[in-house]
Amino acid sequence: VRVFIVHAHHEPRSFNSSLTREGSAALKAAGHEVVVSDLYAMNFNPVSDRRNFVTTRDPDYFRQQTEEIYAAEHSGFASDIQAEMDKLFWCETLILQFPLWWFGLPAILKGWVDRVFAMRRTYGGGKYFDRGPLAGRSAMCSLTTGSMAPVYSDNGINGDLSMLLFPIHHGILYFTGFRVIEPFVVHAPARLSEEERARQLAGYRERLLSLSSAPIIQYPKLEDYDENWVLKEKQVGRSTTA
Amino acid sequence: VRVFIVHAHHEPRSFNSSLTREGSAALKAAGHEVVVSDLYAMNFNPVSDRRNFVTTRDPDYFRQQTEEIYAAEHSGFASDIQAEMDKLFWCETLILQFPLWWFGLPAILKGWVDRVFAMRRTYGGGKYFDRGPLAGRSAMCSLTTGSMAPVYSDNGINGDLSMLLFPIHHGILYFTGFRVIEPFVVHAPARLSEEERARQLAGYRERLLSLSSAPIIQYPKLEDYDENWVLKEKQVGRSTTA
Repeated sequence: VRVFIVHAHHEPRSFNSSLTREGSAALKAAGHEVVVSDLYAMNFNPVSDRRNFVTTRDPDYFRQQTEEIYAAEHSGFASDIQAEMDKLFWCETLILQFPLWWFGLPAILKGWVDRVFAMRRTYGGGKYFDRGPLAGRSAMCSLTTGSMAPVYSDNGINGDLSMLLFPIHHGILYFTGFRVIEPFVVHAPARLSEEERARQLAGYRERLLSLSSAPIIQYPKLEDYDENWVLKEKQVGRSTTA
Repeated sequence: VRVFIVHAHHEPRSFNSSLTREGSAALKAAGHEVVVSDLYAMNFNPVSDRRNFVTTRDPDYFRQQTEEIYAAEHSGFASDIQAEMDKLFWCETLILQFPLWWFGLPAILKGWVDRVFAMRRTYGGGKYFDRGPLAGRSAMCSLTTGSMAPVYSDNGINGDLSMLLFPIHHGILYFTGFRVIEPFVVHAPARLSEEERARQLAGYRERLLSLSSAPIIQYPKLEDYDENWVLKEKQVGRSTTA
């Protein structure tokens, strides 16, 4: 299996970095191909603007999607963006490795999405969700949190984790076609003992080596929606199901 | 009233930019004080790392919160961060102006939060939510979306907008103490007629000039949670209430 890990942490000695390093090594040892984009090490620029492109459709008014469509037709993406797109379409499994910062992706990873997930390459022209350009691939978030699990439950103070991750799972990954694997979550790694950290790392290696049988989050298909993109049959609680 | 607008759009001619420009002018004309951080114009760096600080607590292992606590005690924040913090504590009302990108904040604005909302300045040491350091202030998201309103309903394909905004409203703004005003949302401005755009701009000016009576999103207080940060009395659907 071809695995693409996008890694977003600024400290090489962090638990996130251990997850990527050990996970990557375990996958390679089992014969898989692994490519890692270590965004901090690459000094990846997360600010989406005209530097996403080498082409210009409209020099007077910058409409990002218009420029994306034009760039998609004219090989007009900047080399740093094109390189990430190539990895995205090369892989069979995408893994986003990150600490949950302010209940979402660290900016360097959010900007990787903002810039790389361009219209007409990763979505658009009727290609969304189960019909998305990345359909047939799977994706998983591997993340750490700052607090313990109960805090991320429905009545916990931070809210249900599956709800917090819905914009990423459904809005980014499923939107472009990925099957979304249940996330691998380590709560508050800074508070864990060495044994517990080792156990979590072992659990992560195990998860990575059995991704083909990992649980998939079930979402409606495009055909389940009407012409206004509203579900034909109401599915109560759909949006927070993970 | 002292209003701080954080503006995140790369095109000065965009509808987002019109909202900030006209909103700001209307506030000033009514005698309010307005400060705008135009993140793209400022070339704001959204990548959180050691450049957040001029002090160093641990040169070998970068733990961001540890460095934030140390910097808070030693005036150790980098000048670009300190300047934004000063505006944050100067204001009585914070407005985040942005297009919803990938169901969340554009990276340049997410990184503004990642870097500026530092521990021991905007939260921590028992100061969270209604007891947060920014308590007594109010905050509002003013955003544009790519699609029409039904798409952001509970059975719409993108999910309920209040759920998508929960990580920002509850996790960032209320977490640090702000009262959260119901968002001002313009759906799909690119598809609106000139009249409709003008009507939306007028609606925004009106909202800004009546912020003191604008609807506030009601969240539980810190005292409603037990020692595990779980609600003492279950409030069904709390987390998606907006």
